[in-house]
Amino acid sequence: MLDNTPLAPLKGGIVERPNVLNSIIDLGAKARRAAEALALLSTTAKNEALAAMAEALLAQQEKLLVANAQDIENGKREGLSEALLDRLLLNQKRIESMAHGLRQIIELPDPIGDILKGWTRPNGLHITQKRVPLGVIGIIYEARPNVTVDAAGLCLKAGNAVILRGGKEAIHSNLKLAEVLAEAGDKAGLPQHSIQLIASAERQVAHDMMQAHGLIDVLIPRGGAGLIQSVVKNAGVPVIETGIGNCHLYIDESADHEMAIQIAMNAKTQRPGVCNAIETLLVHESHLNKLLPELLRKLSAAAVEIRGCHETCKIFAEAIPATEEDWRTEYLALKLAVRVVPSLDAALAHIREYSSKHSEAIITQNYANAERFVNVLDAAALFINASTRFTDGFEFGFGAEIGIATQKLHARGPMGLEALTTYKYLVRGDGQVRT
Amino acid sequence: MLDNTPLAPLKGGIVERPNVLNSIIDLGAKARRAAEALALLSTTAKNEALAAMAEALLAQQEKLLVANAQDIENGKREGLSEALLDRLLLNQKRIESMAHGLRQIIELPDPIGDILKGWTRPNGLHITQKRVPLGVIGIIYEARPNVTVDAAGLCLKAGNAVILRGGKEAIHSNLKLAEVLAEAGDKAGLPQHSIQLIASAERQVAHDMMQAHGLIDVLIPRGGAGLIQSVVKNAGVPVIETGIGNCHLYIDESADHEMAIQIAMNAKTQRPGVCNAIETLLVHESHLNKLLPELLRKLSAAAVEIRGCHETCKIFAEAIPATEEDWRTEYLALKLAVRVVPSLDAALAHIREYSSKHSEAIITQNYANAERFVNVLDAAALFINASTRFTDGFEFGFGAEIGIATQKLHARGPMGLEALTTYKYLVRGDGQVRT
Repeated sequence: MLDNTPLAPLKGGIVERPNVLNSIIDLGAKARRAAEALALLSTTAKNEALAAMAEALLAQQEKLLVANAQDIENGKREGLSEALLDRLLLNQKRIESMAHGLRQIIELPDPIGDILKGWTRPNGLHITQKRVPLGVIGIIYEARPNVTVDAAGLCLKAGNAVILRGGKEAIHSNLKLAEVLAEAGDKAGLPQHSIQLIASAERQVAHDMMQAHGLIDVLIPRGGAGLIQSVVKNAGVPVIETGIGNCHLYIDESADHEMAIQIAMNAKTQRPGVCNAIETLLVHESHLNKLLPELLRKLSAAAVEIRGCHETCKIFAEAIPATEEDWRTEYLALKLAVRVVPSLDAALAHIREYSSKHSEAIITQNYANAERFVNVLDAAALFINASTRFTDGFEFGFGAEIGIATQKLHARGPMGLEALTTYKYLVRGDGQVRT
Repeated sequence: MLDNTPLAPLKGGIVERPNVLNSIIDLGAKARRAAEALALLSTTAKNEALAAMAEALLAQQEKLLVANAQDIENGKREGLSEALLDRLLLNQKRIESMAHGLRQIIELPDPIGDILKGWTRPNGLHITQKRVPLGVIGIIYEARPNVTVDAAGLCLKAGNAVILRGGKEAIHSNLKLAEVLAEAGDKAGLPQHSIQLIASAERQVAHDMMQAHGLIDVLIPRGGAGLIQSVVKNAGVPVIETGIGNCHLYIDESADHEMAIQIAMNAKTQRPGVCNAIETLLVHESHLNKLLPELLRKLSAAAVEIRGCHETCKIFAEAIPATEEDWRTEYLALKLAVRVVPSLDAALAHIREYSSKHSEAIITQNYANAERFVNVLDAAALFINASTRFTDGFEFGFGAEIGIATQKLHARGPMGLEALTTYKYLVRGDGQVRT
């Protein structure tokens, strides 16, 4: 039998990093040791831990609700908005939903150990490219306790140790959640420190986390544009940018009238607060008299505020004149910028200038225009005759996602378990030397 | 026929970046426009440009040699070492070799446009994952004129625009090389500004390049540890770390005596100045009397300086006692740290502590030990009974490489053309909306 027991702990030797707080060095070193053991864990062992974690969330609901009540009380005292308080709130249904999420992760195939490629060189060397975990993943997020559970579950299934740093408003909920998950994991045989949460709400800690090069293999920010840009700007460790979506829908001259209206309504109103909802509608000028007025009335009836270009304002009195700022804004709300364009190329030029490279869609019956749209534009996902709302791990068939990547390195678009892995090359020989 | 002509140029609109010099914003904006057109270029067109570039290098040799003579003269005046002057030197043979390198890139299959995956969702959405160029690649390197040609050729073949920033000692050679390549490319129909070289030797320019978020998609440093760490530390744009190799060879108890000696000699002496040469040899204590003394004598005869642990020094009088620093050092020279270990696990613990995660090798006849070595260790390439010198794009069968990645995001190990690409999802529907 192969001896896959983990190595003895490191005897020190973590290189000193003058700008990184001791606490992060300690967390990071513990996470590295956990990661080494996690990388060798069987799928069965990981799934058993996930099941135990789901069980523990349900069994210890009361403790979670008590901790959460403290966050909610503090939040009210500090005047958090209703929307933020709602995101923060835990209740029985939401805890059940978190446990269900972990159970869904059990069902996902384990990507670790897959052989991605394998070949033999003329000199007889046999090379295989084998999928392995990334190692230690840092997640920096806002006051959403569900991210604590999602992120821990996904990182674990892909064999990674995780260091979580959530928004300070959710600190009591997050600490209790992490405690419950880590305890259940420990009992189920997970390596110690597989899941760690940073208790301090100090800003400096997040900064130190961003500088923990060699301890954290990748940092994934989850949250709004401000959080993500701050991490991208300050991080010395590799970052995967997620989730800023200034998405566009272009209704081409040849678009099917009914389809265009249904998709536009869906992409804007089905869930306006998420990154794959559209923020700007571009409409070919041939639709100025019929399709566009009808669509604007329907959007308005659905409480969507219209920020229109000059032509849009001329045909729709309720529209507010759009400014340059509107074309750049991810509203995440029932607002829509609308611009009439003379041609496909004018639409492409607009998108190219303002796109955050998340998701872009065209409605068209014209083959050449459809192909030009998806070939010329640069974005994680390009849609022909479908709603941008489908840019999502479940909708793509990947299962739960850790985020939607909007940069181009490593992973792009919905990031499932595979995005939390890397590979190594195994080279088997029988004495080959280089000449 | 599909209309794949590039878009009209951007009408401004590059977001202001207060910390980034105007010159970089200008270079970056030009590169972005070139990248948009390059992404749509056919393989034939790219290959014709590569052939024209190879031709131009040969045709304009004289100019290149004149420019290089100026760098060599300045280098001598400033007291550059013989080794650095040799790296800097161009001659007819080296220019021919650069042209040959470009012609080899023509032979490589074009990865752009490959469909990596494709599937249909239950709702009828058809999703394909299509390989596309990264966009704009920045290369920061030292005073090696050949990197100018290699990097430009590889970036071009993978459909990317490139911004080159070489060491100041090679500035005249690099400017002339870039000029010759860009002119030949322009004549062969490449988009303008596909290849740009930064003429300024100011340090601030490299710093601005590292901050050009949104303009440069990825920065690849090529050179020594100092350069790479400086880029990793200071970059606000995504970086691929390359080439620091503190590589180990472990001779297991069961190793074949002859094979162990041949591989150790090859891995240390065949080309000691490169990142895949070994820097530390770990030897199981059972070899203290026979294999190790013989190997040390052979290494010494090949002018290798031995820095030994206590046991090594006892059996080999010429050995210099190794310090902690020796275990951490990438000598890139005819020096070797040697440590006798009591077990495989002691060897693994040593490697885990000091490895730069580049390449690690074991010589063994024991199946379980071989598997444990490659499964437990985390590195880009793990070798059983073969020399670490094979971690190389050509040796792996990828062809020319842009570097050897030692981080875990995006690409790991030898980076061929595929490492210079990303993908986008194309989603084709017939009116699907999300419910």
